Amino acid sequence: MTNQIALIGATGAVGREILRLLEERNFPVETLRCFASPRSAGKKVVFRGKKIALEVLRPSHFKEISIAFFCAGRKISAEFAPLAKQAGALVIDSSSYFRGDPDVPLIIPEINPEALGRHHGIISSPNCVTTIMLMALAPLHRRCPIKRIVAATYQAASGAGQAAMEELQQETLAHLENRPFERTVMPHPYAFNLFTHNSPLTESGYVEEELKMVDETRKILNDPKVQVTATCVRVPVLRAHSMALNVEFSGPLSAGQAYEILKTAPGLTLLEDRANNRFPMPIDATGKDMVYCGRIREDKTQPHTLELWIVGDQLLKGAALNAIQIAELFQKKELHAHP
Amino acid sequence: MTNQIALIGATGAVGREILRLLEERNFPVETLRCFASPRSAGKKVVFRGKKIALEVLRPSHFKEISIAFFCAGRKISAEFAPLAKQAGALVIDSSSYFRGDPDVPLIIPEINPEALGRHHGIISSPNCVTTIMLMALAPLHRRCPIKRIVAATYQAASGAGQAAMEELQQETLAHLENRPFERTVMPHPYAFNLFTHNSPLTESGYVEEELKMVDETRKILNDPKVQVTATCVRVPVLRAHSMALNVEFSGPLSAGQAYEILKTAPGLTLLEDRANNRFPMPIDATGKDMVYCGRIREDKTQPHTLELWIVGDQLLKGAALNAIQIAELFQKKELHAHP
Repeated sequence: MTNQIALIGATGAVGREILRLLEERNFPVETLRCFASPRSAGKKVVFRGKKIALEVLRPSHFKEISIAFFCAGRKISAEFAPLAKQAGALVIDSSSYFRGDPDVPLIIPEINPEALGRHHGIISSPNCVTTIMLMALAPLHRRCPIKRIVAATYQAASGAGQAAMEELQQETLAHLENRPFERTVMPHPYAFNLFTHNSPLTESGYVEEELKMVDETRKILNDPKVQVTATCVRVPVLRAHSMALNVEFSGPLSAGQAYEILKTAPGLTLLEDRANNRFPMPIDATGKDMVYCGRIREDKTQPHTLELWIVGDQLLKGAALNAIQIAELFQKKELHAHP
Repeated sequence: MTNQIALIGATGAVGREILRLLEERNFPVETLRCFASPRSAGKKVVFRGKKIALEVLRPSHFKEISIAFFCAGRKISAEFAPLAKQAGALVIDSSSYFRGDPDVPLIIPEINPEALGRHHGIISSPNCVTTIMLMALAPLHRRCPIKRIVAATYQAASGAGQAAMEELQQETLAHLENRPFERTVMPHPYAFNLFTHNSPLTESGYVEEELKMVDETRKILNDPKVQVTATCVRVPVLRAHSMALNVEFSGPLSAGQAYEILKTAPGLTLLEDRANNRFPMPIDATGKDMVYCGRIREDKTQPHTLELWIVGDQLLKGAALNAIQIAELFQKKELHAHP
């Protein structure tokens, strides 16, 4: 059994959720070591009623670790994940650092659990908005291959971390009280405002977040022919991402068929009340494991095209929950191999 | 000259802006009568330093009126605009009531001023998000006809009126202070949340706002072949609409050519600083006459397709400014006819 756990980035927005989920989901944990930046030195986190002192990560720390959850950003993953792997731990990495590596499976357990078999010690958990999108699109793609996705996203502050969530609230309060406010996290005013996703802009004019949606969708669906173009936008919402998708399929797929397929899709809930113009909203998804989908309609301007509206908690299915589910999948497989 | 003005809906979000713009733009006004609902009886508005008592609209009020600005919603327009027209006034209607009428020109002065010649006493000013969109798309369409637009909007509270803007701020403050809040305007929680545009949902699954974008785009561009599909979303922003557009043209049009064309488009400003991932934001457009466009990029997933990002003040070019510009256009033509 694999129950010497390391959590790297334990005080961040995703790390906190992993800690909570390990407890909530009764994940078998024998020892848990929590790592954070030197800023957090001396602080403690609580797990199953016990206080755990936060440690500053060092290369030697991975001895005896069976699963290491990395959620402290690309730099920490780049430096320490190979060491953890070398020491024999299974790395579950929430950063983007290894996602493009052909030797690293990129897994959404409901969609491509079979990819686990190809791991070499590191497994990547996908980009949040890609994961939430594919929870609805993968089941449809399996029925009728997707040709092209045009996506526009409405992304929450949480994708930029705990500090961004706090800043959004503080800046909004200052705005409402007519007080000046000095931002330190977000690049642009955020109170009652929105802006292009704050990942680096590439030569193509697309930001990295938009290109992640292209590359990761193809890798997870294991289909390099799927075309994706996206506009990613940061909106003043705290922790759930929404998106409007226009999806062209390679053949006929009615809205009715899509509803039928998604009714039984794992991890997905259809949510709508057409009589009241009520479709998924960020507050529906906040704190929930499920991804919500609704407003499926046939786009009469192009054959074989559906429009969908999808909302999911960025910190849960978009990050922490998916990472835990990868660990659970790994455990089940280990148990099966060594019962 | 046409300078006996009536403003119907003078206390609403659009009416207030029309009042301000009449003054700011030195619109020739000999007398101004301001109408509002009985709730506002006894109140006054200020115009050019003088107080004007608000009146409750009655059918007899249109005698001697040369231009009547209607911005009090569909019901008031339906009831009173025909009476105003009958009494000899030119009606400039900001509501959607007459927009589909083939006898009523639907005008954006920068785009289809020639439609003015076909009026029969009533001119409609288009839907806000359609107007803002077309300020960037019409110049491109003239160069290379548009085949299909996939739009996702990020619409501000102001589109639902002054009360919605106030409610968004009050609800957000209550949320930040952990106080309960009772909404009376918006159908769904709005603080740090977003939802499908709150216009009626039609049988097709599209809300009326989305269908307005289809019908009004075709009428203004005078091209029934243009295909439009949209997802309209209310975001917690106060008064500027944003939108992500994926636009397929009937032939080649590079991003560079589009920038070149839009550099000189009237009423439009290109705004971007790629080095700093800085594109138009709602706060850029707030209180501004200009519509802002940026992030034009070639969509490699489909031939002849560009992506654009557009932001404009919903109350100004989206409503009040466009109405005033129609009046100015009318005046110029009158002056030309009877110099």
